[in-house]
Amino acid sequence: MPHIALSDEVPGIGSLFRYRPDTGQPLKELAETLLRGDSTLTRGERELIAAYVSRLNSCDFCAWSHGAFAAHQLEDGYETVEGVHADIDTAPVSPKMKTLLRIAGKVQQSGLAVTPADIDAARAEGATDVEIHDAVLIAAAFCMYNRYVDGLAVVTPQEPAAYDAMAEMIVTAGYVR
Amino acid sequence: MPHIALSDEVPGIGSLFRYRPDTGQPLKELAETLLRGDSTLTRGERELIAAYVSRLNSCDFCAWSHGAFAAHQLEDGYETVEGVHADIDTAPVSPKMKTLLRIAGKVQQSGLAVTPADIDAARAEGATDVEIHDAVLIAAAFCMYNRYVDGLAVVTPQEPAAYDAMAEMIVTAGYVR
Repeated sequence: MPHIALSDEVPGIGSLFRYRPDTGQPLKELAETLLRGDSTLTRGERELIAAYVSRLNSCDFCAWSHGAFAAHQLEDGYETVEGVHADIDTAPVSPKMKTLLRIAGKVQQSGLAVTPADIDAARAEGATDVEIHDAVLIAAAFCMYNRYVDGLAVVTPQEPAAYDAMAEMIVTAGYVR
Repeated sequence: MPHIALSDEVPGIGSLFRYRPDTGQPLKELAETLLRGDSTLTRGERELIAAYVSRLNSCDFCAWSHGAFAAHQLEDGYETVEGVHADIDTAPVSPKMKTLLRIAGKVQQSGLAVTPADIDAARAEGATDVEIHDAVLIAAAFCMYNRYVDGLAVVTPQEPAAYDAMAEMIVTAGYVR
């Protein structure tokens, strides 16, 4: 049960966006720009970083929703998502994505955990400064979204179909509707 | 030295807002709404939550800047900020603020660490649902800003006067200029 009185018309973070639209708007715009705006990383790759960090933070709502958003936009779907959660080293993603996911994992612990060697490894696989910036900010942003969702104990649907339905909406219409 | 090539015209998170204005805009709007928009918590109290979480995350730039923004808007200035960093129990803040700071401290660890008892304690001291919401979101947001700043190793001025100068600008003109 949520810690505060939220509308039960929508689950998850949507119930918080409705509760406080003034903060919901910039939070949705940040997600739209980072995860769907112009980028040399695909939308699926960016959602994969979001899902990975959410899983590390044990945030079921965000891990399941962004896992679905990633799966619906990646060629190998849930296989890639589960592969990353299991082991980045053997996951079916590019060498560049592995280095960006490793940076995201460091950011999940603390920004101070990111080392010049982590950055050098990403550059050696062809990552640009903007890609490194975005990987860090996506990871940092999900350390916020995850805490926001779980800190107020929002309703988390338990059936996978709910997340596939959300994914169809996000893939089609995005975060700011 | 920053991990990516940032302008050296401004230090701290400002260098990241210049680097990527598309993400900078919602990040500044979120701070403006949460820390300076209409609220039954004073601006000083909200900056205090930001400074406290930033200190827990060992993010010097954010702890020093939001510590200054809090001090410049609280009656007892830096005494209150240092009191909170030293020990919430004995800090010169209201009983309600102590419960909100304790919730913020839980959120800094994980959203899942917040218990119904933490929420009940805040309500018993008169905290409203919106105040609890905002305390959770401020704490969550600084878990993002802190990781963004340190994950890219932005320039952190070492002299306190730099932060007092920033505080005068924030108190006068806000985060979105």
